[in-house]
Amino acid sequence: RRRGIPEAVLADGKTPAEVASMAMAALETTGRVLVTRADDAHVAAVTDDLPADATVDHDERARTLVVHAPDFEPPDLDATVAVVTAGTSDAAAAGEATVLARAVGATVDRIDDVGVAHLGRIVDHLDTLRAADVVVVAAGREGALPTVVAGLIDTPVIGLPVSTGYGYGGEGESALGSMLQSCTVLSVVNVDDGFTAGAQAGLIARAISGARDE
Amino acid sequence: RRRGIPEAVLADGKTPAEVASMAMAALETTGRVLVTRADDAHVAAVTDDLPADATVDHDERARTLVVHAPDFEPPDLDATVAVVTAGTSDAAAAGEATVLARAVGATVDRIDDVGVAHLGRIVDHLDTLRAADVVVVAAGREGALPTVVAGLIDTPVIGLPVSTGYGYGGEGESALGSMLQSCTVLSVVNVDDGFTAGAQAGLIARAISGARDE
Amino acid sequence: RRRGIPEAVLADGKTPAEVASMAMAALETTGRVLVTRADDAHVAAVTDDLPADATVDHDERARTLVVHAPDFEPPDLDATVAVVTAGTSDAAAAGEATVLARAVGATVDRIDDVGVAHLGRIVDHLDTLRAADVVVVAAGREGALPTVVAGLIDTPVIGLPVSTGYGYGGEGESALGSMLQSCTVLSVVNVDDGFTAGAQAGLIARAISGARDE
Amino acid sequence: RRRGIPEAVLADGKTPAEVASMAMAALETTGRVLVTRADDAHVAAVTDDLPADATVDHDERARTLVVHAPDFEPPDLDATVAVVTAGTSDAAAAGEATVLARAVGATVDRIDDVGVAHLGRIVDHLDTLRAADVVVVAAGREGALPTVVAGLIDTPVIGLPVSTGYGYGGEGESALGSMLQSCTVLSVVNVDDGFTAGAQAGLIARAISGARDE
Amino acid sequence: RRRGIPEAVLADGKTPAEVASMAMAALETTGRVLVTRADDAHVAAVTDDLPADATVDHDERARTLVVHAPDFEPPDLDATVAVVTAGTSDAAAAGEATVLARAVGATVDRIDDVGVAHLGRIVDHLDTLRAADVVVVAAGREGALPTVVAGLIDTPVIGLPVSTGYGYGGEGESALGSMLQSCTVLSVVNVDDGFTAGAQAGLIARAISGARDE
Amino acid sequence: RRRGIPEAVLADGKTPAEVASMAMAALETTGRVLVTRADDAHVAAVTDDLPADATVDHDERARTLVVHAPDFEPPDLDATVAVVTAGTSDAAAAGEATVLARAVGATVDRIDDVGVAHLGRIVDHLDTLRAADVVVVAAGREGALPTVVAGLIDTPVIGLPVSTGYGYGGEGESALGSMLQSCTVLSVVNVDDGFTAGAQAGLIARAISGARDE
Amino acid sequence: RRRGIPEAVLADGKTPAEVASMAMAALETTGRVLVTRADDAHVAAVTDDLPADATVDHDERARTLVVHAPDFEPPDLDATVAVVTAGTSDAAAAGEATVLARAVGATVDRIDDVGVAHLGRIVDHLDTLRAADVVVVAAGREGALPTVVAGLIDTPVIGLPVSTGYGYGGEGESALGSMLQSCTVLSVVNVDDGFTAGAQAGLIARAISGARDE
Amino acid sequence: RRRGIPEAVLADGKTPAEVASMAMAALETTGRVLVTRADDAHVAAVTDDLPADATVDHDERARTLVVHAPDFEPPDLDATVAVVTAGTSDAAAAGEATVLARAVGATVDRIDDVGVAHLGRIVDHLDTLRAADVVVVAAGREGALPTVVAGLIDTPVIGLPVSTGYGYGGEGESALGSMLQSCTVLSVVNVDDGFTAGAQAGLIARAISGARDE
Ligand SMILES: Nc1ncnc2c1ncn2[C@@H]1O[C@H](COP(=O)(O)O)[C@@H](O)[C@H]1O
Ligand SMILES: Nc1ncnc2c1ncn2[C@@H]1O[C@H](COP(=O)(O)O)[C@@H](O)[C@H]1O
Ligand SMILES: Nc1ncnc2c1ncn2[C@@H]1O[C@H](COP(=O)(O)O)[C@@H](O)[C@H]1O
Ligand SMILES: Nc1ncnc2c1ncn2[C@@H]1O[C@H](COP(=O)(O)O)[C@@H](O)[C@H]1O
Ligand SMILES: [Mg+2]
Ligand SMILES: [Mg+2]
Ligand SMILES: [Mg+2]
Ligand SMILES: [Mg+2]
Ligand SMILES: [Mg+2]
Ligand SMILES: [Mg+2]
Ligand SMILES: [Mg+2]
Ligand SMILES: [Mg+2]
Repeated sequence: RRRGIPEAVLADGKTPAEVASMAMAALETTGRVLVTRADDAHVAAVTDDLPADATVDHDERARTLVVHAPDFEPPDLDATVAVVTAGTSDAAAAGEATVLARAVGATVDRIDDVGVAHLGRIVDHLDTLRAADVVVVAAGREGALPTVVAGLIDTPVIGLPVSTGYGYGGEGESALGSMLQSCTVLSVVNVDDGFTAGAQAGLIARAISGARDE
Repeated sequence: RRRGIPEAVLADGKTPAEVASMAMAALETTGRVLVTRADDAHVAAVTDDLPADATVDHDERARTLVVHAPDFEPPDLDATVAVVTAGTSDAAAAGEATVLARAVGATVDRIDDVGVAHLGRIVDHLDTLRAADVVVVAAGREGALPTVVAGLIDTPVIGLPVSTGYGYGGEGESALGSMLQSCTVLSVVNVDDGFTAGAQAGLIARAISGARDE
Repeated sequence: RRRGIPEAVLADGKTPAEVASMAMAALETTGRVLVTRADDAHVAAVTDDLPADATVDHDERARTLVVHAPDFEPPDLDATVAVVTAGTSDAAAAGEATVLARAVGATVDRIDDVGVAHLGRIVDHLDTLRAADVVVVAAGREGALPTVVAGLIDTPVIGLPVSTGYGYGGEGESALGSMLQSCTVLSVVNVDDGFTAGAQAGLIARAISGARDE
Repeated sequence: RRRGIPEAVLADGKTPAEVASMAMAALETTGRVLVTRADDAHVAAVTDDLPADATVDHDERARTLVVHAPDFEPPDLDATVAVVTAGTSDAAAAGEATVLARAVGATVDRIDDVGVAHLGRIVDHLDTLRAADVVVVAAGREGALPTVVAGLIDTPVIGLPVSTGYGYGGEGESALGSMLQSCTVLSVVNVDDGFTAGAQAGLIARAISGARDE
Repeated sequence: RRRGIPEAVLADGKTPAEVASMAMAALETTGRVLVTRADDAHVAAVTDDLPADATVDHDERARTLVVHAPDFEPPDLDATVAVVTAGTSDAAAAGEATVLARAVGATVDRIDDVGVAHLGRIVDHLDTLRAADVVVVAAGREGALPTVVAGLIDTPVIGLPVSTGYGYGGEGESALGSMLQSCTVLSVVNVDDGFTAGAQAGLIARAISGARDE
Repeated sequence: RRRGIPEAVLADGKTPAEVASMAMAALETTGRVLVTRADDAHVAAVTDDLPADATVDHDERARTLVVHAPDFEPPDLDATVAVVTAGTSDAAAAGEATVLARAVGATVDRIDDVGVAHLGRIVDHLDTLRAADVVVVAAGREGALPTVVAGLIDTPVIGLPVSTGYGYGGEGESALGSMLQSCTVLSVVNVDDGFTAGAQAGLIARAISGARDE
Repeated sequence: RRRGIPEAVLADGKTPAEVASMAMAALETTGRVLVTRADDAHVAAVTDDLPADATVDHDERARTLVVHAPDFEPPDLDATVAVVTAGTSDAAAAGEATVLARAVGATVDRIDDVGVAHLGRIVDHLDTLRAADVVVVAAGREGALPTVVAGLIDTPVIGLPVSTGYGYGGEGESALGSMLQSCTVLSVVNVDDGFTAGAQAGLIARAISGARDE
Repeated sequence: RRRGIPEAVLADGKTPAEVASMAMAALETTGRVLVTRADDAHVAAVTDDLPADATVDHDERARTLVVHAPDFEPPDLDATVAVVTAGTSDAAAAGEATVLARAVGATVDRIDDVGVAHLGRIVDHLDTLRAADVVVVAAGREGALPTVVAGLIDTPVIGLPVSTGYGYGGEGESALGSMLQSCTVLSVVNVDDGFTAGAQAGLIARAISGARDE
């Protein structure tokens, strides 16, 4: 598929049978498929249907399933994406972003649990952040972390708001609003949309890798 | 008046004549009055009507007018409030908070333009922050600054969201949401409500000053 | 931990195993841990894992679990927090606030079921209210009680909106809006956020207690 | 006109000429007309056009104009409506309600500036409140007053939310929400809708007056 | 209890045991109690606990339980409330309103399934409508029925918006908005708030009945 | 232009010069142009620039300007659109819809001031309504009229919500919500979008006229 | 029934028994009935109750049940409706629209999975689109497809927004907003309201078929 | 300044004097300054104050002012940003983005008026789009254009929603929602935030240019 982004099936809201049949079709046509937001039944249905020689990678926390046909050659970029989380609750969205960026071929570095309540934590990882070509920052609640990160480094930062929290703004609206209003330079994806965050980071990494190869 | 908070007239939405007459009544009854959100016409109407011996203090940026009868003895607390701003646009709300906290009798220390885009700036003022008994932090746009401040100090912090910004969440909703969702411990007032922020900080300062005097 | 606020794990949205392991880590590092919004499975997982000599305090209504290592010396302040509820439905949020304020070391006085439909009830408790150093008022539906309380006393009041109600504004937005728009001086926390209300009250109590000790 | 409610022209958003011509038409057909939300130009246009023998009553604060043909006999009910305000900013909406209730024929008693910040004030007027057959309570900001009033008396209460305030909920949504969520029994009209509040109070007064006459 | 409105326990969100104990307390103090939004478990818990001589009236569709002590003398007014529904889905809210108005002592006439899609239906009931002293109109979806009814009769009308519908405005906001914006004279209660609609209609009926008795 | 819909310039938010130059370009390319939401300055700029032989039709209330080159042959359909308004305030949006439907070639019948507060009015026009091939119904406030009309006739009805009203839902959201939730069959356009309502009615009239011609 | 639209029972939120009895009543009166949003229990209850000679058509994906009495003669129009979907998730709403348009008597052509991410797909079906008399386009997420379709053809287009998506605007608000703001000419129905989309398309088809028959 | 993004002063909401003094300070410290959202008074104040040898570039439509000290050497990247608009109303936001991307040193190619109502237009510019390293797409109303563009090319796309439109979603919420829900891969900035769109595109171009130089 164009752009190096794998065909993906959003399992949530579909029956296991529907997901399995859509996944098989994509696998046959493109040599691989990604299933996102998969629950146990989706995972079972897809893996049951697979040809014996396919390889499957299931990430429970990210709720993703990556399937490759035996002859599929995954893309391999000369570029790195850093994926950063503020806290434990950001792990699912950040995991989805990680899977996507890797699927596009980027190397992914994870930096976890560096929320702004303890500023020292993020400062400790400045070297890893600076070594990355593009950075995805996942944060829920007040969503301040991407703003702080983009104030510390020169690299493009993508904000990934997460639907942790409760009460006013607690389904990710506050985190989304923070990132859209950020006083540092960020672009943003929708709440919990690790897919787009990782894919967009992957596309940027791909452009940089391409420039390195020129 | 109880609590040490002066009678206050919110000028916005009232005619100059209404404001002047309400201000005179409060001045006569309680020995002082505070006019907030006053424009030039309000200021003129109030000052025109005043007895010759009253003292007037007009803060243009804060849009406040503080009037004292000659015999009024302002309260004087043994406690300090720090009022912090993220940027220039927070000056009006922070000014209103400053006027209120002073009216309750607190000493006020201002720390300005220390927004989270440049983390070094707020860190440079840690000593002043730590010396305060209570801290008001005004911030617009993504409103991240109170969260960061409350992660750095042991003092009670009051978040004051400001209606700078535009687009999604740009009338202060994002700043309010950030502060209500903060991953550090804050209490909050309404958007642009410097009055309540300063008064609440003043009440806490008053309780602390009272305890010092016990 | 700084500020006297215990490490806390928000159990809601995490698996029992995750909560138990985070709780153990906090207990080992800081000598105590607080688990909030814990359901039966969370409680079981945490208590199963505990060392035999730890003490556990489970408040079913508040859904909190307070765990102390044998050698932990809880802070003890010379200051009182009053926690007030308008009705039965405010008990969970008020309970969380109570647990937090106690964890910071304050003495907590509870005043329950004094909603504004029967004004006499709150007036009957004026002595207790006046004896407190800081007051938390939990109210759902129209959220009028904190406004009325702050009109009666000289002490700092923190409004804690509760998500009781239905229809327009029924998930706590009306209560939150009432408190943010209050015509008396209040600061506010997010809907159902007993954690922050209790912690902020605790920080104020701590500042007052410190001033008493000077 | 049926129900005893006068034909009314909402001037806001119409040109002076349109309003004048609609008012004349109503005056001719029904013997009277009410113009609401009239600015100076509307008032001038309507009064300019009037027949010499018409009587005109212009209430500047309520922004209403009541015009009677010489032979019009206004309805006269044996029933009283109390119209209560929390503060000065509620005067316009309460004034509109007063004009409407009077136009339907009720006697109107006004009780002003009895907001909940000073509970004593409303309690001082309990006799007047109890003497009324129906009560309209106008309040802005947190809109708590109708809830408190309905807890004190046995009469039907109509809540009239007013668009004073700023920030979150500051265009009357908080006041409306408070009244819809009230823990006492109220019915409600739209924000600033003194017209409907006064007319509905008038209709109830009319039913009671009719019952008195049976 | 004052106003003739029975003590009521809102069962939804409380445990059966809590509801039963609150109901018993009210029954003992006031001779009767009303339980609203009761599910099967609430009904069982309350009826299990009752003294043998209490009378119980359970309305399954309205989800109400009315309990009288043997010596309780229900109020009996000389006034009628009409309760009107647009369709089947309005039955629960209308049922709650009916139970409340009856509890206050009014005679209740029901007119069902007369939505505006078939104008003839409501017109067929004009005599019943005109015979009533006050009218409650329940409607979901576009909520047009109360507006139409109030255009047809001279009696006070209370709009009761119902949360039927889906998509934009489908949780009752469209119905509520319609009623608040109505071009005829209505007062309104919150979405699904049959309790307040019935109680307010009861209070008006009570005032009219009182006037009849003068 | 395809579909028979004229090139249109939305003047609002553009400078007179921009509008005039865009209008001239469209006139030259397509033989006619429509300018909508034009204020006096827009009208002056466009008419100043026009070639002497162009014909101009300015509808002040609808704020439209229709310009034809001398050789332009307007489309002429064998089909009728009825455009209905609830009240005076709906005239601008209904006027825009009228201009559009005529521009597509339909005959337009207007039925004005037949709001649901007086059901008799709309019933009086049933013959005109039934004679139309498609009906546009403009209504503000509670927006009930299109629902009532669609219950009376067999023709396709398009709801056009208008931004009259104030308070909750007063910028057309209640009218829009009513129409989207209608219990009769309607399709809808955006608030105040007379352009789309008239154009869509025109397209349907065009399809019917085409079928008549087969 | 007038307009050729069958009596329909919206099963969602009703008990199986209620639905069955309403369906039987409609079947007896009008010779047919449509049940929408039926789950398995609704289907079972309705089919159990049916007379042996009735014909039943259950569409699982559309969640509809179409029941005809043996002597019912379905309407048969000389007009075609195209029903288009952007993706798999639009199938339920599009299916409901299909069932409705067929029930009114139109021929329905389906064009599936032609979302705007791959522009070639919709362009491949231009002939089918052009052959239709009216087009319904179902789309979720960003809801761009109806705008693109209406830019390609001369036929009336009805936008049907679908509640796929998550995060900001993810319950169909973004799709609805896109269609209401469309820069091409569309009319719109509520989110997931396949019923109204199909019925309105059917009414337009019926008008065109009638014109063909003249 | 770090990241190559010039110091920028947001003039809107500041006085001309404030803007001029902030601009001078930035010019002196960093050798250049950017003023955004400048009206005529801001422009006059800034240019009046400038040293004679500074160069000024005022873009009226974009409302920007770029000022360089004589010795300032603007950055010059080996990378291209395409800035695309759907229509005339997107010119201001797109202009701001253009100025920013150029200030960071990128070459900018503009593609204007290629909205989705006429698919052919955007397809005609595929070569320019494919030649760019990163693409900013500005669109108002339904905001469909970035989704379509991202479906056509392999390059990273940034969506820039614009506040054209009226009625539901008309202040840019629909455009923002469309882009956040896009079924192709996009990252997004806030409504009308050409500053961030251009700056983020510039940062990506800078990373690519850096990779080309390695
Ligand atoms: N019930 C609660 N409400 C608000 N904040 C909480 C609550 N419980 C814990 N917290 C705070 O949330 C922080 C992060 O929680 P966690 O998601 O568990 O890492 C904790 O360290 C506490 O400061
Ligand atoms: N201030 C007001 N608020 C609410 N409704 C009003 C007001 N003034 C007039 N009305 C009602 O609005 C109806 C329609 O007004 P109009 O737009 O003037 O035709 C009048 O007949 C009154 O019933
Ligand atoms: N799925 C649906 N969506 C929208 N309207 C419907 C649907 N199904 C039925 N209706 C309409 O809703 C009306 C009232 O439904 P009910 O609540 O069953 O009385 C029916 O007569 C239909 O006109
Ligand atoms: N038009 C704009 N939109 C968004 N951000 C801006 C704009 N103009 C300037 N900024 C940013 O806002 C920051 C703070 O602006 P100021 O309020 O002027 O201190 C500047 O340093 C820029 O990074
Ligand atoms: Mg964070
Ligand atoms: Mg900040
Ligand atoms: Mg209360
Ligand atoms: Mg009040
Ligand atoms: Mg209805
Ligand atoms: Mg209407
Ligand atoms: Mg689409
Ligand atoms: Mg577009």
